[in-house]
Amino acid sequence: MSGFFITFEGSEGGGKTTQVSLLAAALRGRGHDVVETREPGGTPVGQTLRQLLLRPHTGPPTDRLVSPAELLLMLADRAQHIHEVILPGLHAGRIVLCDRYADSTTAYQGYGRGVDLAEIARLNAFVCGACRPQLTFVLDLPVAVGMQRAHERRGAAAVDHFEAASVAFHERVREGFLAIARAEPARVCLIDAAQPVEAVHAAVLAGVRKRGPALL
Amino acid sequence: MSGFFITFEGSEGGGKTTQVSLLAAALRGRGHDVVETREPGGTPVGQTLRQLLLRPHTGPPTDRLVSPAELLLMLADRAQHIHEVILPGLHAGRIVLCDRYADSTTAYQGYGRGVDLAEIARLNAFVCGACRPQLTFVLDLPVAVGMQRAHERRGAAAVDHFEAASVAFHERVREGFLAIARAEPARVCLIDAAQPVEAVHAAVLAGVRKRGPALL
Repeated sequence: MSGFFITFEGSEGGGKTTQVSLLAAALRGRGHDVVETREPGGTPVGQTLRQLLLRPHTGPPTDRLVSPAELLLMLADRAQHIHEVILPGLHAGRIVLCDRYADSTTAYQGYGRGVDLAEIARLNAFVCGACRPQLTFVLDLPVAVGMQRAHERRGAAAVDHFEAASVAFHERVREGFLAIARAEPARVCLIDAAQPVEAVHAAVLAGVRKRGPALL
Repeated sequence: MSGFFITFEGSEGGGKTTQVSLLAAALRGRGHDVVETREPGGTPVGQTLRQLLLRPHTGPPTDRLVSPAELLLMLADRAQHIHEVILPGLHAGRIVLCDRYADSTTAYQGYGRGVDLAEIARLNAFVCGACRPQLTFVLDLPVAVGMQRAHERRGAAAVDHFEAASVAFHERVREGFLAIARAEPARVCLIDAAQPVEAVHAAVLAGVRKRGPALL
């Protein structure tokens, strides 16, 4: 495939969506054809799965998604997304920017929920095959800052299932992303997302210039 | 767990739903507490997944579920179903009768769609853990007979995604169920479902008497 695949990862409130848009605009300004997408929910089927995955838990406890079901729904969303959006984009020579991908599964369902990490690695490999990002930005910030930002953005009433999880859960998720960044420094660019939006964007551009193939 | 777990498997048109009801009635007549359930769709989340999985393919080709996504949605449905319905039923000492379970994944997504059988075995083991049926009935019949029955029952307009698949697909699925029956004769009871309903029911009762712990 001739395109380039960049993912944005990190905890809630780190500004992934904003940074995807800013990078997309910068790349388009250089004449690139860019696909902006996200997980879960990057396809019509994925939209339904996203609703199942993110709905607040207001029903009886038995109605909650168990961890293996949550994991498998995330992976189903990814399998469909790769087929419908990511691979077609890459095969057409586009730059695909994805807001969350396989690393989020490792961090949230693995480090956060406690599903076996080796099992998740195997499942991600089964689903992704060769469709792996060439460059990943982990937007890192302290859990308290991220949770406050997420609440301010949406209002407490609209907080989703993941945003409503405990501080301890989000601490484990953050540690997961940091561990991924440590383990794969050639692919993963760790950015301090507590900085102002413009500074984070500058760090993203620097990361693309350093690690991407002359895109900017 | 003190209950007993029986699954009904086989291709379309074999009469699984009818046989689950007849066996449930027979067991209740002997004073047993019985749970009748099915996959996909045995939970509220599963109902949504069932709609995604069975809807007819009328949209553009890109809108079709790819095989890995179909597989993972089936497994997500199972994970939730085990947690919400099957294990609670078994732990309460009930007899759980389930219309399709892990063998259907092997037959449809493995033999039918061509997903690697070893991968499916691993995924089923990950999802099911120790929650395996003690007794399984495979209701077998020629593909042409099964497809005709399914069409008569629902009308051609209401045929779902699996029922609308090719004869070759259904032949592979049937071969899958037969292979499972050959491989695990201690668990799986193969029944000729081309017989009249009463004869199939009699064979089911005989199977329970022979392989179940004095339930009837």
